[in-house]
Amino acid sequence: MQDSRLTAARVARLATTDPDGRPHLVPIVFALDGDTLYSGRPQAQALVDATAHRERPRAPDVTILVDHYEEDWDRLWWIRLRGRARVLDHGEEREHALALLQEKYPQYRAEPPDGPVLAVDATEMLEWTG
Amino acid sequence: MQDSRLTAARVARLATTDPDGRPHLVPIVFALDGDTLYSGRPQAQALVDATAHRERPRAPDVTILVDHYEEDWDRLWWIRLRGRARVLDHGEEREHALALLQEKYPQYRAEPPDGPVLAVDATEMLEWTG
Repeated sequence: MQDSRLTAARVARLATTDPDGRPHLVPIVFALDGDTLYSGRPQAQALVDATAHRERPRAPDVTILVDHYEEDWDRLWWIRLRGRARVLDHGEEREHALALLQEKYPQYRAEPPDGPVLAVDATEMLEWTG
Repeated sequence: MQDSRLTAARVARLATTDPDGRPHLVPIVFALDGDTLYSGRPQAQALVDATAHRERPRAPDVTILVDHYEEDWDRLWWIRLRGRARVLDHGEEREHALALLQEKYPQYRAEPPDGPVLAVDATEMLEWTG
């Protein structure tokens, strides 16, 4: 997953499947390490979904989309990852993920994210360019 | 669904559930009419998913996200709609949807979208502001 558009993107969208089979969708910030994507959430935002008991995906299959929109539709592109999610509650990999997120997002340096970190091991990448 | 941020947004993301239960995710352009959202796709882009047999959602429950990102995380917001999808292959509602899409997107006036239009009757709206 070495696409420079992907690594440079500041925001992505994460789709999961709710226990009732309905799709769930949230914006995420993220950092990549090889084929693993680590997802953070701005603090207050994470609370919304935690309250709704959706912070922790129950089905491990997730889909992540990074897309570029502009009015010249010949210049649209998107990159879609599919993979399996793991929740990191503590430990070395979580610390590593937090360091990557703080490196990419200065916002996290002032206020490090707490709580679990979502790791997604990407198994498929599809890219489309207009 | 009268939120001005929602009606003004140029792009959204549509999540559906694949027959195998995995989430599927694509960027869409859209126009709103009351509580119904009509989704269009830039032409070439639609072909990608049609090829993948995913143009026509098999499960009617869909989730749509419109979000705003900027580096000042106090100014983030998103709006999430959940609802049920209908595929309009032909008929008056499809014509109405195309007119709304062409009104919002000049790109469609030069080259009207062909093929089915997705209508989503929104039943839930959740908004979050940072």
